[in-house]
Amino acid sequence: MLNFDLYLPTKLIFGIGSIERLGIEVKNIGKKALIVTGKRSSQENGILERVIKLLSKENIESVIFSKIESNPKNNIIDEGGEIARVEKCDFVIGLGGGSAMDSAKGIAVVAKEGGEIWDYVPDGLKIPKRITSALPIVEVPTLSASGSEANGGAVITNSRTKEKIFFRSYHLFPKISIIDPSLTITVPPEKTGEGGIDIICHVLDPYLTNIEPNTPLQERLQEAVILTVMENLPLAMKDGRNLEARANLAWCAVFAVSGFPNFGENAGFPMHSIEHPISGLYDIPHGRGLSALIPAFLETVLEINPKRLQQMGERIFKINESDKKKLAKETIKRMKEWLEEIGMFTKLRELGVKKDSFEKIAEDSIRISGMGRNYLSNFPQLNKEEIIKILKRAF
Amino acid sequence: MLNFDLYLPTKLIFGIGSIERLGIEVKNIGKKALIVTGKRSSQENGILERVIKLLSKENIESVIFSKIESNPKNNIIDEGGEIARVEKCDFVIGLGGGSAMDSAKGIAVVAKEGGEIWDYVPDGLKIPKRITSALPIVEVPTLSASGSEANGGAVITNSRTKEKIFFRSYHLFPKISIIDPSLTITVPPEKTGEGGIDIICHVLDPYLTNIEPNTPLQERLQEAVILTVMENLPLAMKDGRNLEARANLAWCAVFAVSGFPNFGENAGFPMHSIEHPISGLYDIPHGRGLSALIPAFLETVLEINPKRLQQMGERIFKINESDKKKLAKETIKRMKEWLEEIGMFTKLRELGVKKDSFEKIAEDSIRISGMGRNYLSNFPQLNKEEIIKILKRAF
Repeated sequence: MLNFDLYLPTKLIFGIGSIERLGIEVKNIGKKALIVTGKRSSQENGILERVIKLLSKENIESVIFSKIESNPKNNIIDEGGEIARVEKCDFVIGLGGGSAMDSAKGIAVVAKEGGEIWDYVPDGLKIPKRITSALPIVEVPTLSASGSEANGGAVITNSRTKEKIFFRSYHLFPKISIIDPSLTITVPPEKTGEGGIDIICHVLDPYLTNIEPNTPLQERLQEAVILTVMENLPLAMKDGRNLEARANLAWCAVFAVSGFPNFGENAGFPMHSIEHPISGLYDIPHGRGLSALIPAFLETVLEINPKRLQQMGERIFKINESDKKKLAKETIKRMKEWLEEIGMFTKLRELGVKKDSFEKIAEDSIRISGMGRNYLSNFPQLNKEEIIKILKRAF
Repeated sequence: MLNFDLYLPTKLIFGIGSIERLGIEVKNIGKKALIVTGKRSSQENGILERVIKLLSKENIESVIFSKIESNPKNNIIDEGGEIARVEKCDFVIGLGGGSAMDSAKGIAVVAKEGGEIWDYVPDGLKIPKRITSALPIVEVPTLSASGSEANGGAVITNSRTKEKIFFRSYHLFPKISIIDPSLTITVPPEKTGEGGIDIICHVLDPYLTNIEPNTPLQERLQEAVILTVMENLPLAMKDGRNLEARANLAWCAVFAVSGFPNFGENAGFPMHSIEHPISGLYDIPHGRGLSALIPAFLETVLEINPKRLQQMGERIFKINESDKKKLAKETIKRMKEWLEEIGMFTKLRELGVKKDSFEKIAEDSIRISGMGRNYLSNFPQLNKEEIIKILKRAF
């Protein structure tokens, strides 16, 4: 096991109806909040109004910044930061999916530290500015997916270059997150599915790429998340009002990024690293891009590190097959079938991705996520050619 | 799933050699530390000396309080608190197993708030004083067991009444815990085994008693801990210097009490609740008392809630048996066999426990852990008679 620090200084408030505690929980943080939310959904379904009321009951003033769209852009975040500064907001509330929650984090930095958010983003071309402070952040997820409610990271897209980049800081951990599964019941099946795929990939990425030989607890925790999402995602997609399934997905989203499932492993996030340039470039949903990549990446794993697929086959799909090669192949087949069953099997071409961008996608993913090396991930090591091979398979 | 808050505000520093970071990590906490440790082991194996040196390198003064024995007593903790106050220590370092770490927590309270530690302990006879502050706490486990390094709880025994009671507060969370598996390599096999049994029971207790119908992630996380301890405990008992096994146990100890494996469940800790009066009364090792109770408690579960044993049989012991009753029985048999194999199978009589104390043990466990009801745990509901039945079976 590798050495690591695990520090999750967020108060996680979980449960159906827990949104009612919002005002009381945040009233010691400040008297004026910037609510960062999406253009449509949280307004349409009444959640935004409810949040404003809960704050106002505790004499907390709200300023609404509702310009967030999926794959949130740096210029919008800069604008939000400026508003928070001018309006003298004491703290920021992210209300929505990963886009709103990540934007809230970026806005909290810009509002407190000034400058532009892209200065702080490690784009592989410059040494980013260090985040030394941020306004207090509160997150209220309305989609089970990114886990932004339980980590110190955010993903932001450059509106000009289309680069979509993950960055992190201790100061980006929410002070408080209120994870109320009942806020997710209006999420439509397709978006629910995309969120579930994101959760799975948060643990599947390190599961398939870890090269540390002795991390049995971590592997089992990853398997626990995969199995639980695979059970509950179809239920929530079929009946959005299935609160138990929604609750299980909401808690899986948190746990997946908590650090426990992967800290101590020597692993990468290749599917995430390849997907970010895709959704940055084509402005498609992250979970959709990931689901196109899963079967293609599994084929690469089969060539280079089939042991992982064998373990996955035995423990996730309970495949009883003594021929190890067949077992690994059957695992890929089952994964594909599951994606098909829930209507999440996708090809990149169906998402509008063009073949002539493969080179740029591969180069960007290595530049942005390769940590200065000319490949992604340790095992399989994915150089530009390998990444293009995955993209072709996923096409 | 039940509603809950999960807040683990401890910086967990994990890894072989991580003790070297102690001085640098704590130097912002204060200039003078009270080191709370056991009478013998941490002095004999040189760890105490090393800790003092690491602190001194950062100009942190050390005061040593090395009077802690297993099942630490309230009067010793009061004494430690007085020393911390008189010596004007800025913070407290618990160095050792659960006894030293829990004592450090108690001392941190007494030093800051004054009074006697027993005032703060909910003994079922009085309304305890509320803990409103404590000196900053740093924990350095040298035994993988209690998980005191990753929670806000402590167990203290009353030297006069022999009551052994768990209490908790937000203020008892360590600021920092340094979990260095290399500090555990000198722990002898027997003590290693007792620690492993404690870890297993931290998840097995809620696993067997949970009545919430829909907690699939939690159950899998509990199974992950049980499986990983069952794999690694024999290795560490056989070869104390097996650092990988030691590391896995150390991380299991942390994860077991992190909240993730059981929050959201409606479960009890009956084995812990019954064992505390036993080790309080007879001053025996907690893990030894637990291992005597496990097979006996499983028999009670078989009578009242066999489903749990069936799931355990399938997922932990991989038993292939379609007859559900046989499956549950076989699970108990396998658990016993495993305890025997690692030399941890015990009967209460071998620990010096007398039959004529069963009534008192049962009454104390209900008074202390029954939350005002006349039984322990929800399902199986354990009233006095049921507890005595378990004790007789374990005798």
